[in-house]
Amino acid sequence: MTDEKRMAGKPVADRMTEENRKIAQQLRQRGITPTLAILRIGERPGDLAYERGAVKRAEMTGVDVRHIVFDPSVSQELLLAEIDRLNGDESIDGVLMLRPLPDTIDEKYVCEQLSPAKDVDGITSGSMAGVFMDTDQGFPPCTAQACMDMLDHYGVELKGKRVLVMGRSLVIGKPVAMMAMKRHATVTVIHSRTRQEDLAKAGRDAEVVIAAMGRAKMVGPDILGEDQVILDVGINTDEQGQLCGDVDYEAVFPRAAMITPVPGGVGSVTTAVLMKHVLQAASGRDTVR
Amino acid sequence: MTDEKRMAGKPVADRMTEENRKIAQQLRQRGITPTLAILRIGERPGDLAYERGAVKRAEMTGVDVRHIVFDPSVSQELLLAEIDRLNGDESIDGVLMLRPLPDTIDEKYVCEQLSPAKDVDGITSGSMAGVFMDTDQGFPPCTAQACMDMLDHYGVELKGKRVLVMGRSLVIGKPVAMMAMKRHATVTVIHSRTRQEDLAKAGRDAEVVIAAMGRAKMVGPDILGEDQVILDVGINTDEQGQLCGDVDYEAVFPRAAMITPVPGGVGSVTTAVLMKHVLQAASGRDTVR
Repeated sequence: MTDEKRMAGKPVADRMTEENRKIAQQLRQRGITPTLAILRIGERPGDLAYERGAVKRAEMTGVDVRHIVFDPSVSQELLLAEIDRLNGDESIDGVLMLRPLPDTIDEKYVCEQLSPAKDVDGITSGSMAGVFMDTDQGFPPCTAQACMDMLDHYGVELKGKRVLVMGRSLVIGKPVAMMAMKRHATVTVIHSRTRQEDLAKAGRDAEVVIAAMGRAKMVGPDILGEDQVILDVGINTDEQGQLCGDVDYEAVFPRAAMITPVPGGVGSVTTAVLMKHVLQAASGRDTVR
Repeated sequence: MTDEKRMAGKPVADRMTEENRKIAQQLRQRGITPTLAILRIGERPGDLAYERGAVKRAEMTGVDVRHIVFDPSVSQELLLAEIDRLNGDESIDGVLMLRPLPDTIDEKYVCEQLSPAKDVDGITSGSMAGVFMDTDQGFPPCTAQACMDMLDHYGVELKGKRVLVMGRSLVIGKPVAMMAMKRHATVTVIHSRTRQEDLAKAGRDAEVVIAAMGRAKMVGPDILGEDQVILDVGINTDEQGQLCGDVDYEAVFPRAAMITPVPGGVGSVTTAVLMKHVLQAASGRDTVR
């Protein structure tokens, strides 16, 4: 029983990678080498860890990776020139830009220069418009897409369901709300300005909860109801320095219908989604090199 | 008492037009003639009526209007060439394209060719991304903006309020949900696939309701609560052929805190918003002609 409740990310990522691998093989047979460029500035531990995860997933999938590393003192001009080069480089299918960029850089402006066709992590306004308008322009942010893939894998249908999205960020809250709405869910979005009593009421009423507030263990049994499907997108550290989500997993687990752990939940699926997006971008290539 | 409850559009449009007129005067003093191009295909009565309303509002405001009219048999090629010309014409600040376009035209594609800088009615993905990401790219759809202007005029603060958006269209539901979220409202979006019991529950719980389902008088006292602020965006005809909204105004009025009539409500504000957008576009002009 316990295992059925726990929505682990690994089986989702494994299955997706299996499918991705077949697509990568087919592309290679057509003479296309699916390729992701990872653009990193500096040596932040979090960036390095994510990059390692992406590289490992790329190897499992059959996607080539090119690493572009700049010193934190890089000028905006140089960064823009590199993005321009990547946009024009036909051997690159997707670009992952590790963020946040240094304070000296106008992050919003720089991100906008990336071609939506190569924006495999959904950071450009072109990709955002695609999510908002439900067109095939760009790509949704990997974490938002990972939530949908988790639900699909574990057989959770959203049609007609009451879905509560906690958080209104561009990386996850807003796009995941749009994606749930596309699947015909009735969607409520709460956030830091929501009144406490409304938060608890919305929490109790929801059938599916997507927690993405970015506050360690803030979502407990006092806010939630029973028999709910709970996706925890938060990645925080608790007072003991341990990795934890936005949901108080231990306390919520007994009452939940299904729940994702942190770590080992939604976060484990993002690199597989990233590869799926790279392969989709590569599949769009008209010419064989 | 009765008059205080009824949120009429006219005073909102009048006040906005007063402000717009001053801005138009200032622009003209700088040698800039704020100019709207209205692109119409065919002679549909609805289009002609809206165009007449826009022209009248433009005259009151001090905005010049250029009319571009095509026969319904116009080719997509010709239409695209005209949009291209309008994008490049520095004497045109904004373009209103009356829709829907004929079936022979790929409407989505054609709309996308309009420059977001001139997209004063928010039909391009650039404008949609601006609304979704809360940037100053493009313009929000006039009707969605008119809802916000109505609330401002009548002193309805959204911060921390429970707002219910009925409908998820790109013209009104989705953008107005984003705009309410930006104002720190807790937002729920319901739509045609929402379960009946959830619809009634969400309707009772809301403090502000924005009805935009496009179904005549479907929102009645059975769905709503008491003391609510109700914006009715619907424009339908009832069984007697009379213009009516999505809300059953007569039945709902006694219980509402405030409510917009149809006609004479939100719809009366849209052309004033359109002029505001044209003036904003014109104010961005660097050069004086």
